[in-house]
Amino acid sequence: MSRVSCAACKYQRRKCTSKCVLAPYFPANQPKKFQNAHRLFGVRNMVKILDELKDEDQKSDAMKSIIFESDMREKFPVYGCVECISYLRQQLQITLQELQDVQSQLEFYRQQHPTATYPNFDR
Amino acid sequence: MSRVSCAACKYQRRKCTSKCVLAPYFPANQPKKFQNAHRLFGVRNMVKILDELKDEDQKSDAMKSIIFESDMREKFPVYGCVECISYLRQQLQITLQELQDVQSQLEFYRQQHPTATYPNFDR
Repeated sequence: MSRVSCAACKYQRRKCTSKCVLAPYFPANQPKKFQNAHRLFGVRNMVKILDELKDEDQKSDAMKSIIFESDMREKFPVYGCVECISYLRQQLQITLQELQDVQSQLEFYRQQHPTATYPNFDR
Repeated sequence: MSRVSCAACKYQRRKCTSKCVLAPYFPANQPKKFQNAHRLFGVRNMVKILDELKDEDQKSDAMKSIIFESDMREKFPVYGCVECISYLRQQLQITLQELQDVQSQLEFYRQQHPTATYPNFDR
């Protein structure tokens, strides 16, 4: 039975066998996914990461994170996925500040109207 | 004048010259930093990233993000820096939910006491 080469084997122009450890993560119809990962990490490093994990779910999660990091590095050549981390930190900072502001306002209302109660109030 | 080999050249047992592009980012006294980056990306890929950036500040920021990603991958072998992203997303989600709760409480107080005003109230 003929086997369609995965994107990794196709890119490297080698025969893709049933033992190919990269095939589950790089389907033939998504060559860009492999190119980004290969460009950033290289095949050897990806195989090493997979070899060091025993659990199949962990291997799959590791490859998802590797592919995510590669795609982010293509999108943001300077910061890679640190761009996401910076954005999320900033959003968290803004939201925490807003929460603090709203809590201060709430505290003010409570002090002004100590007898008022809020339905389902659990604090 | 003798030159102390950077951690990258020391690890690779080669002479570190003034033209070494990795020396600014891998001081001799921090070998682990290089080992993690080398292990995840490889020297060739790091040099390629540096070559593709012209601006010195961008090169420096890119290497900081590369070193951060490498350190995170050592700490979290399965998720790498996606671990940070997941954590931040979760924290942001929790904070947004809390903000929504506090805003609902505030809205309740306002409706109960429409004449009350909050000092420095800018909404």
